[in-house]
Amino acid sequence: MSQLVQCVPNISEGRRPEVVEAVIDQVRQTPGVHLLDYSSDRDHNRSVITFVGNLASVMEACVALSREAVKHIDMNQHSGEHPRIGAVDVIPLIPIQNITLQECAQAAVELGQRLWEEVKLPVYLYGAAARKPERENISNIRRGEYEGLRMTVVQAERLPDIGGPYLHPTAGATIVGARLALIAFNVNLGTSDKSIADAIAKSLRSSSGSFQHVKAMGVALEKRGQVQVSMNLENYKRTPIHRVLEAIRREAARYGVPVVGSEIIGLVPQEALLDAAQWYLQLEGFSPKQVLENRLREL
Amino acid sequence: MSQLVQCVPNISEGRRPEVVEAVIDQVRQTPGVHLLDYSSDRDHNRSVITFVGNLASVMEACVALSREAVKHIDMNQHSGEHPRIGAVDVIPLIPIQNITLQECAQAAVELGQRLWEEVKLPVYLYGAAARKPERENISNIRRGEYEGLRMTVVQAERLPDIGGPYLHPTAGATIVGARLALIAFNVNLGTSDKSIADAIAKSLRSSSGSFQHVKAMGVALEKRGQVQVSMNLENYKRTPIHRVLEAIRREAARYGVPVVGSEIIGLVPQEALLDAAQWYLQLEGFSPKQVLENRLREL
Repeated sequence: MSQLVQCVPNISEGRRPEVVEAVIDQVRQTPGVHLLDYSSDRDHNRSVITFVGNLASVMEACVALSREAVKHIDMNQHSGEHPRIGAVDVIPLIPIQNITLQECAQAAVELGQRLWEEVKLPVYLYGAAARKPERENISNIRRGEYEGLRMTVVQAERLPDIGGPYLHPTAGATIVGARLALIAFNVNLGTSDKSIADAIAKSLRSSSGSFQHVKAMGVALEKRGQVQVSMNLENYKRTPIHRVLEAIRREAARYGVPVVGSEIIGLVPQEALLDAAQWYLQLEGFSPKQVLENRLREL
Repeated sequence: MSQLVQCVPNISEGRRPEVVEAVIDQVRQTPGVHLLDYSSDRDHNRSVITFVGNLASVMEACVALSREAVKHIDMNQHSGEHPRIGAVDVIPLIPIQNITLQECAQAAVELGQRLWEEVKLPVYLYGAAARKPERENISNIRRGEYEGLRMTVVQAERLPDIGGPYLHPTAGATIVGARLALIAFNVNLGTSDKSIADAIAKSLRSSSGSFQHVKAMGVALEKRGQVQVSMNLENYKRTPIHRVLEAIRREAARYGVPVVGSEIIGLVPQEALLDAAQWYLQLEGFSPKQVLENRLREL
């Protein structure tokens, strides 16, 4: 089996489809990588692009898409719900097949050096690629967001790991790292009171001492007149989707607010959804090998 | 892509592993077929074997396993919860890839002829292969089970479609047909009162005018001190797992009885579990293409 790295760059543009397309075209045009998915969110003003390939090709695609994004996105004009520090806000490398997390972490450092040298983007290293322990957690890097970081980037504790000691004048900085597959899971609440989404998000966050491996924040969905608990589930094996959703349902009930829907942004490992089905159906003795498609794949 | 037929023979033996193994060995030894799964149930005294292959090889395996089962199983000594009329109780042919339901139905007739000529098993045709409309529904063929059918087999309306007009002296008769993939789904209740499982099963059955495409019956699980609603979901697209389970939960609550667990016997299409996850998670806008494995398979 060939080497497979998944890469999920998040760019700070979710409202101008022509810009998103121009960036994604760089992925489409890079030999050796396959575009799997992309989705844009107007409220977040952010797009998530997912592609896979061998490590060398994935790195080429990352440099190309970053160069394109920097051409079009001016962080000084950017607003959106999701915290961000740059036009190419984050590039995670995720081991899928025939590659380790450590190898991805090493590649993240190389990629960071290329982004600085070739695109003039200063780079913060996070996750398994972090050089400073506090930067394993991406939230610490995003503190103050683009606007705040412009002021503080010269301070010793906020200096980029590669490049700087200043931000790109329009594209800010980029966070590059390695991690395991995560799930972007959002839960919509039947209220327009954002403070309720905020409070529920707070009750879930690992930083509040509740769930490990969950990043959560409240988001207003203006058009729907609803609010959302927007999450990254960073370890769906230890903190499964259903446990998080059930916690949200209980917390929301305390405010008399119903869960009206949820969404998974981008890709999700099959196991995460099978685990949810298994839990809600109270299945005993179930194995993923019982899934017909999984068995046929082995033939 | 090659032709793929799934075949799920049910044999009337779930307590003697050596007999089950001898029968399954016939599948293992047939070139061109792949054994996917098998499971035995002591209470049902029945085993379900699942394999796939091209049509010709699947038919060879069916004749071989039937010959072996007939050697070991004496229906005059058989008892078990599940209704049955023979040692090789039923053989369904299921189109998976590059073959139609009608082609499988035609093949079922040929297979029936071989079982009669080569193994002396009289055959009833069911599902898409049925010659009489009332035999589309397998329950009508099993009416009175082995013991009753011994007496009634000579009556015009109970005559086998192929062979007879008598049963095999020890192996009874075999039901052969073609159908779409079904899900064997059992729900366990926290009571030892079988009449509750019976009543819930009755409330679900299509024959009672409730759910289409659901076969259900009450079963006592002696060892667990529980009862079970044992089901075949014959069309998981029209009557999904979660809708059936939720109906059972509501019916059981009326007796103050909890659902304590469920099980899927054998294989299940991925779509059926994704649909359940999607429903319980209240997912909006979800597509099976978001499942990472599904996308990687296309590369």
